[in-house]
Amino acid sequence: MVTENKTADVSFESLLRIFTIPEAPGSALSRIEAKLSQNLNEFLREHIVAEEKPLREIEKDFSEAAIPESPVFVSDHTQHLLDTLVSHSVHTSAPSFIGHMTSALPYFLMPLSKIMIALNQNLVKIETSKAFTPLERQVLGMLHRLIYQQDEAFYSKWMHSAKHSLGAFCSGGTIANITALWVARNNALKATDSFNGVENEGLYSAMKHYGYEGLAILVSDRGHYSLKKTANILGIGQDSLISVKTDKNSRLCIHDLEEKISQLKHKNIKPFAIIGVAGTTETGNIDPIRKIAEISQREGCHFHVDAAWGGATLMSNNHRGLLDGIELADSVTIDAHKQLYIPMGAGMVLFKNPNDMAAIEHHAEYILRKGSKDLGSHTLEGSRSGMAMLVYSSMHIISRPGYELLIDQSIDKAKYFAELINEQTDFELISEPELCLLTYRYVPALTAKALQVADNDQKKKLHRLLNGLTKYVQKRQREEGKSFVSRTQLNPHKWDKMNTIVFRVVLANPLTTKEILQSVLDEQREISNNSGSLMKEITKLTHLILK
Amino acid sequence: MVTENKTADVSFESLLRIFTIPEAPGSALSRIEAKLSQNLNEFLREHIVAEEKPLREIEKDFSEAAIPESPVFVSDHTQHLLDTLVSHSVHTSAPSFIGHMTSALPYFLMPLSKIMIALNQNLVKIETSKAFTPLERQVLGMLHRLIYQQDEAFYSKWMHSAKHSLGAFCSGGTIANITALWVARNNALKATDSFNGVENEGLYSAMKHYGYEGLAILVSDRGHYSLKKTANILGIGQDSLISVKTDKNSRLCIHDLEEKISQLKHKNIKPFAIIGVAGTTETGNIDPIRKIAEISQREGCHFHVDAAWGGATLMSNNHRGLLDGIELADSVTIDAHKQLYIPMGAGMVLFKNPNDMAAIEHHAEYILRKGSKDLGSHTLEGSRSGMAMLVYSSMHIISRPGYELLIDQSIDKAKYFAELINEQTDFELISEPELCLLTYRYVPALTAKALQVADNDQKKKLHRLLNGLTKYVQKRQREEGKSFVSRTQLNPHKWDKMNTIVFRVVLANPLTTKEILQSVLDEQREISNNSGSLMKEITKLTHLILK
Repeated sequence: MVTENKTADVSFESLLRIFTIPEAPGSALSRIEAKLSQNLNEFLREHIVAEEKPLREIEKDFSEAAIPESPVFVSDHTQHLLDTLVSHSVHTSAPSFIGHMTSALPYFLMPLSKIMIALNQNLVKIETSKAFTPLERQVLGMLHRLIYQQDEAFYSKWMHSAKHSLGAFCSGGTIANITALWVARNNALKATDSFNGVENEGLYSAMKHYGYEGLAILVSDRGHYSLKKTANILGIGQDSLISVKTDKNSRLCIHDLEEKISQLKHKNIKPFAIIGVAGTTETGNIDPIRKIAEISQREGCHFHVDAAWGGATLMSNNHRGLLDGIELADSVTIDAHKQLYIPMGAGMVLFKNPNDMAAIEHHAEYILRKGSKDLGSHTLEGSRSGMAMLVYSSMHIISRPGYELLIDQSIDKAKYFAELINEQTDFELISEPELCLLTYRYVPALTAKALQVADNDQKKKLHRLLNGLTKYVQKRQREEGKSFVSRTQLNPHKWDKMNTIVFRVVLANPLTTKEILQSVLDEQREISNNSGSLMKEITKLTHLILK
Repeated sequence: MVTENKTADVSFESLLRIFTIPEAPGSALSRIEAKLSQNLNEFLREHIVAEEKPLREIEKDFSEAAIPESPVFVSDHTQHLLDTLVSHSVHTSAPSFIGHMTSALPYFLMPLSKIMIALNQNLVKIETSKAFTPLERQVLGMLHRLIYQQDEAFYSKWMHSAKHSLGAFCSGGTIANITALWVARNNALKATDSFNGVENEGLYSAMKHYGYEGLAILVSDRGHYSLKKTANILGIGQDSLISVKTDKNSRLCIHDLEEKISQLKHKNIKPFAIIGVAGTTETGNIDPIRKIAEISQREGCHFHVDAAWGGATLMSNNHRGLLDGIELADSVTIDAHKQLYIPMGAGMVLFKNPNDMAAIEHHAEYILRKGSKDLGSHTLEGSRSGMAMLVYSSMHIISRPGYELLIDQSIDKAKYFAELINEQTDFELISEPELCLLTYRYVPALTAKALQVADNDQKKKLHRLLNGLTKYVQKRQREEGKSFVSRTQLNPHKWDKMNTIVFRVVLANPLTTKEILQSVLDEQREISNNSGSLMKEITKLTHLILK
């Protein structure tokens, strides 16, 4: 806790000053801003403390629930932020931070973000956003075209049409997924001669009117957790999110999908939406989109593709084939704050049919009047910032071939890392990279041999011990602050679907080098071998099995 | 369209540069950023063209759906943004832009925003946000305490508890309202011995289990349009959002509320939530919160207060009495991007009972593991930015007494403007300000007299003509770009609830002066009197009536 004891005065004149007079160039805040603008990575390396401080300790700095009764000077507060917040934040853009879907960002986005925030537009309506409204519609059009590849006439007809919407810009993929399935639900239970639509009469009446015993959404067992929230909030219930089996590459099994659909229909449960995953969160695998599309069409289901992560792959002509059939989806989620390298807060959902979003259209008297082009009439959110500007600028400054290079290098790097892991005698690759994600774990060479000859009980025991080790190493590595990988639990086919804890790596950051990847493995090896009793137990059991 | 023809090269080396090398101090982007940082108002005055360009014209600059195949230089693109986007954006922070809930923002928020965006934390989990997580929990604690005024022991017990949450930070008030009613719905239809809860089994099963014929949410007819979306998305249906009558000050009628509740119960419809409005969007009025709270308690309903606008009033000890009884609410929505003077994208919902949000708790394997303090386990959204930092800083730099001054001056200014309007013979105040909102219209002095003596038909006719005039003046004033008021349609008691189009004014900007208010009236008078045929018709009918 720093110099919070000095207080500024409270008068209307001093308040007016903070609304009219910028920080002096020499002020603490200006200096920090300048340093960070000059070299972000250096700034963060300098200010984020390497060794992790326990959360309980950090919480002490953020424990006061009373709103301060005296103002502090901006400079003092800035120093306070540096000492308590920035120093214990996460260096998400570090090339060695390869555990989550964050990356270094293009530099030009920082000043552009400041301009965007200074303009403080509200995209809910034209009166508070003007040119930002057609800009956002264009960005949605660009993403729509990237997916659906309609012709010019299509976009000149629909992109700026007051009564239509090609999609919605959202705060993130969760809102995008909810929006897609909200539209799907309302279109599945729409108005008839004797029924006023689920949007007006609600689900209970809708079910009685349509005579269904239940509704269902189908998605593979690797679907994102936001889909559970979606089923919950939409009133369908999480039990109605039907989990379809996956093959050894975490891709949806068509056979099981067919079986689940026929079981549902037998029970008079209407499967109104099927979801394809294009880039599973944990391993980056892509469902057989074209085949799912065919089944959805046959069954009259809304087909949604959750491409929050993998959607950016469409930018690469070399790899867009991985998402073959995506143009058949009724809707697609893409997160620009993932592999389109935009700061946090930029999700999108796109709809193939410009009429689809009419299912959730809404109006109000003081804004969103009928016939207006206000974006707010087709969004789940209300007031929204001008984030679309950052996507627009990146599309122009990086351009499609630039994004192609970024995507290609990330996939190449993942393949390289997979090879590197395979070359080690004491690491085990768990999931092969399809996009730039892969999972693996540390298994001492001898233990790997033991696993081959162990009986079932021994296998389970070893697995449990290795799970403990992976957990320990991941935590220790994070705490030491040199590099970061995440961890998750998978059920690999090769290990008879036993719960297997793995390191999870996302290689989106273009600044991550081969040397860094090597040193991540070195560090994990070292931590493993210094893990004391954990490793001792593993070695003991290994010797027992191999004896 | 500007210099978009020059193209940069596409190579991995040039791409790496945009991730590692900042804009040179002399670059176009740096210069623009510097100018904007030095004097935002001047920058915007200089770059936003005064005269409005028709939207159709602007759209031409945003009509290309193809993602560019060649990159452009940052400087060229910056110039392009200035010419096509910034020039036709809305000067939402101008002191004469008094039509919507935007205002000038404190200067220190601009560099802080840049720091926040550069840190690019993801608040969904601790692994990508670390100290930002306790910071956000503290901010929620501060707002909770502002509303509920619990003691220190309460906050030290709950604020950082892994299994609890005092609320959620959201992208805006709409998500906050949806979150509140999602919690309310799930708690109203929770699990029993023979039922697994609406979150798992869905609404159809829930209704059958509980034996209700329907559900209902009650709110005054001045409730925000986001509540319709809420009823729609939650599967309750918009028809089940029951509209309660308001008195002449747009406040909910307790008598009608009681009647509506008894009608619902008679039909076996469960009213599970009642909403109090604390600051109606159109006129800034506040429902009788304490009385609604008592009824909600008696009926076992969740009581939600939508204080998206009015919540900031709690900062003023002089005016917090206007929200008397708010501490009895089960949940409250507050938008920090409204009268807490934070940039767009900062809504919050607070829950009185730290256990309430358990109704929507969710977990996943790779994040949000049980026992973790990851914020994502209690939010509707997934990945989220570190916006809470801006609220935190403003609380410290402005402090409560600073906010008190800001709130007080806005209410004083609205009262002054109301008096000013009342002093004019040719303006009619439609709604008195309770907070800093008011509505009015232009009515020529003679026409005002005519309205007093007109018969019903004539009154209706005059009203229609005046509506046309108000609409015309509002549009014309916006197009001329000197000042901006919004418009809406009200049904004032004094005019027998006839549809009445009015100017709507929000006086949150501390830089708005009395001179500006005077000139807004002058301009409206002038536009009215130069409106040609519109004014001629009004004059003609006026003379006919007074003859």
